[in-house]
Amino acid sequence: MSGLARFALNQRTTARWSVADAVAGCVAAGVPAIGLWREPVADAGLDVAARLVADAGLRVSSLCRGGFFTGGASHGDNVAALDEAVALGTDVLVLVPGGLPVGDKDIAGARARIADGVAALVDPARERGVRLAIEPMHPMFAADRGAVSTLAQALDIACDHDPDVVGVVVDTFHVWWDPDVLAQIARAAGRILSYQVSDWITPLPADALLSRGLPGDGHIDFAALTRAVAAAGYAGDVEVEVFNAEVWERPPADVLADAARRHLDLVAPHL
Amino acid sequence: MSGLARFALNQRTTARWSVADAVAGCVAAGVPAIGLWREPVADAGLDVAARLVADAGLRVSSLCRGGFFTGGASHGDNVAALDEAVALGTDVLVLVPGGLPVGDKDIAGARARIADGVAALVDPARERGVRLAIEPMHPMFAADRGAVSTLAQALDIACDHDPDVVGVVVDTFHVWWDPDVLAQIARAAGRILSYQVSDWITPLPADALLSRGLPGDGHIDFAALTRAVAAAGYAGDVEVEVFNAEVWERPPADVLADAARRHLDLVAPHL
Repeated sequence: MSGLARFALNQRTTARWSVADAVAGCVAAGVPAIGLWREPVADAGLDVAARLVADAGLRVSSLCRGGFFTGGASHGDNVAALDEAVALGTDVLVLVPGGLPVGDKDIAGARARIADGVAALVDPARERGVRLAIEPMHPMFAADRGAVSTLAQALDIACDHDPDVVGVVVDTFHVWWDPDVLAQIARAAGRILSYQVSDWITPLPADALLSRGLPGDGHIDFAALTRAVAAAGYAGDVEVEVFNAEVWERPPADVLADAARRHLDLVAPHL
Repeated sequence: MSGLARFALNQRTTARWSVADAVAGCVAAGVPAIGLWREPVADAGLDVAARLVADAGLRVSSLCRGGFFTGGASHGDNVAALDEAVALGTDVLVLVPGGLPVGDKDIAGARARIADGVAALVDPARERGVRLAIEPMHPMFAADRGAVSTLAQALDIACDHDPDVVGVVVDTFHVWWDPDVLAQIARAAGRILSYQVSDWITPLPADALLSRGLPGDGHIDFAALTRAVAAAGYAGDVEVEVFNAEVWERPPADVLADAARRHLDLVAPHL
């Protein structure tokens, strides 16, 4: 199973599974790491979830998610997310930046508020030994989810801060289209805190939020992106993170087995 | 009606209207220009369509569309589109670049083929006095429609050629999210061949191709983009181009009247 040594299940890929189910599923499949989400962790209870992953010997590759700096989340809630990361044993909190509040047309202003929101979390993160992973999001989410639209922009924000505290997520789904992506991944050396993989499938499913495919089902060149991430020095886990209604209807253990095979075929050889 | 002096109806906004209907609708509404599409022009007959717009005294702001260099259209079909532009009395042919053929994961290769396809059309365009307007498309269409994803990329291709022959389209829907958009519009001075407006609405409708709103219904700052286009020296028409199933269900004359009002409120003051 050495080909899976850096493979992680982001638990949204198997959305029907509770934390307990997902932990058991990973153990059964020989998967060494898991990316957790705050909502299912809260459903399980933070202490219970922490004990489940620890007892199973799983690494927690990241916690999703803080952020939403432009209207939704409060600073206090983001600090709570940092505490949850500590409790779960991960040092990576993924930050979804947030989009434009209803009626707001000032995207430059939203981007400035995102930078301010990140800055306000730097000291609390440092105190807890947690790193902040800014996630640039596909431009189709600029209005309603994340107004940081390119890796370059995320790095511009991150580079105002200590690389030991603030970095970025490279998520293939969000960045694959970017003509500048390989150069920006190189620029991100020392700042890549999470590498997440899913594919861009066509036609785009009706719900844009659920439009991801398993690696190999779409148009993304995982070899090129993975080689770039490896060349930038990233040595962490690779989370498969697929939001897709049809994938979620399948038995989760089958999805995990497929995802592991895709990792072995498309990602691991290039790490 | 001087506020409408540079307003143009892109006929896809009133998709139910034939060319004859759209021409009559523009005349009735005091709209001086129309952007035509090849399919409805073919339905009407090229000569009939040309006579309709000429007899009505309408400018033809552009013809959509050539392009699809990555798999679909042939060079011969694109040359035919140039001939149609001449017959219709417009000197602007909009080029939709084309995406990735099924199974193709080489987006860099697709982008190179697009540049080659444009280059092959330069001489035929020059001979006919038609200009080629490369349309950068929103990154959500990179796989299936247009792998030129930013204005910067479109300009990189255009700038290999004579500015009298090759330029770009600035379409608010496609470029609004780009952190670099204002700088790239400035860079596009002398190369902007068409300015098209529609809004980014949320939630994104189920069919991503039909996800545009009338200006004012979404998150785009038309004042900022229009001022930038004007500052870059663009003196042509402003086409309202809305693909949206709900808009298409409404009486087309009502849609045109609404679009004209939005132009007067949101666009014309900044031209």
